[in-house]
Amino acid sequence: MQQHIKQLIESRISANYFDTTRPLSDADIAELVRLATLAPTAYNFQNWKFIAVRSPQAKARLKAVSYKQQKVEDAPVTFIIVGTLAAHEGLPQALKPSVDAGIMSQKVADGLVTMAVNSHPGNPQLQRDEALRSGSLAAMTLMLAAEGMGWNSSALSGFDPAGVAREFKLGENDVPVMLVTVGFAAPGNWPQKPRRPVQEVMEFA
Amino acid sequence: MQQHIKQLIESRISANYFDTTRPLSDADIAELVRLATLAPTAYNFQNWKFIAVRSPQAKARLKAVSYKQQKVEDAPVTFIIVGTLAAHEGLPQALKPSVDAGIMSQKVADGLVTMAVNSHPGNPQLQRDEALRSGSLAAMTLMLAAEGMGWNSSALSGFDPAGVAREFKLGENDVPVMLVTVGFAAPGNWPQKPRRPVQEVMEFA
Repeated sequence: MQQHIKQLIESRISANYFDTTRPLSDADIAELVRLATLAPTAYNFQNWKFIAVRSPQAKARLKAVSYKQQKVEDAPVTFIIVGTLAAHEGLPQALKPSVDAGIMSQKVADGLVTMAVNSHPGNPQLQRDEALRSGSLAAMTLMLAAEGMGWNSSALSGFDPAGVAREFKLGENDVPVMLVTVGFAAPGNWPQKPRRPVQEVMEFA
Repeated sequence: MQQHIKQLIESRISANYFDTTRPLSDADIAELVRLATLAPTAYNFQNWKFIAVRSPQAKARLKAVSYKQQKVEDAPVTFIIVGTLAAHEGLPQALKPSVDAGIMSQKVADGLVTMAVNSHPGNPQLQRDEALRSGSLAAMTLMLAAEGMGWNSSALSGFDPAGVAREFKLGENDVPVMLVTVGFAAPGNWPQKPRRPVQEVMEFA
């Protein structure tokens, strides 16, 4: 399946109904997360975590804190995409693979850490925005990667953040950004819904 | 150029250096925005605007409020991706094309509007989160679409939001979520930076 990205974007649907008889393997799931982590983040923070909810017990717990949406039970996997606050604290570790690979010097990495440490502590709104940005960029990458593999997906922001945090033992710096269900669509889903005309939402400057 | 999405994701770089001699046409730019608007949003809010900054004068104004980052001047276009607050207010208009196309009934659309109106007013954090989510999902779609067209991109969260709002006459409900530069990469960019191992950022449940 070698569709061009344009066709993938144009054909992607938000699936409400999933085929309950077709699972995804743990290897499939991990591959989706690997691709999601190739999304960009400010400073290359990689300030995210991915919880792949795919056991019946965990699905039941997640469904209970996401307004009982049936697709959480029906889809083979729902990812809890978590953005993390205080991203500057994890930056040295996040940049280490780039230093080890010789892409950036330790000095450059240290300079980036200094910049982040000068702007993020004491700025909770920036930290939260960065968690939302990173998590959402990863979520979109994951959904398009899934589409490219012939699967379908759905992004959910309808969940109880405190309930998700409690049920899945999130830390105080963990912000559940979005849930993303992935699997094979069942019949009955809406087609891609038409959008407002481009000229209504864009301007040139 | 018919690369598979997986290869696009794996080869995407965040470009710092752009070829200043290769422009994009306004039609190219509008096509990127059209594809970006096919990203999902909660309720299909489509709570976003896209300002395509590509004139020398507008680039200079944007560069001045984005820490003088040279790529804003060098790239043929930088998109200011704006998420909008009070998304529930625009929902009837956003769903109208789906009703007109017969995809959902007016009753279903009205039900979605009721749900949004019951949850969004009086919840500024939810509104802001939704603006960040929608804008970031669109930004990622735009970047992968650009990649598929053989162009390069870079996401910037390093800008002065108040300055961007002032210079580009954003309204009080407009949140500048991200800047995205698009163009042809010049030599000298970093390759894609390696990420932390998947097992460090994912767990199964």
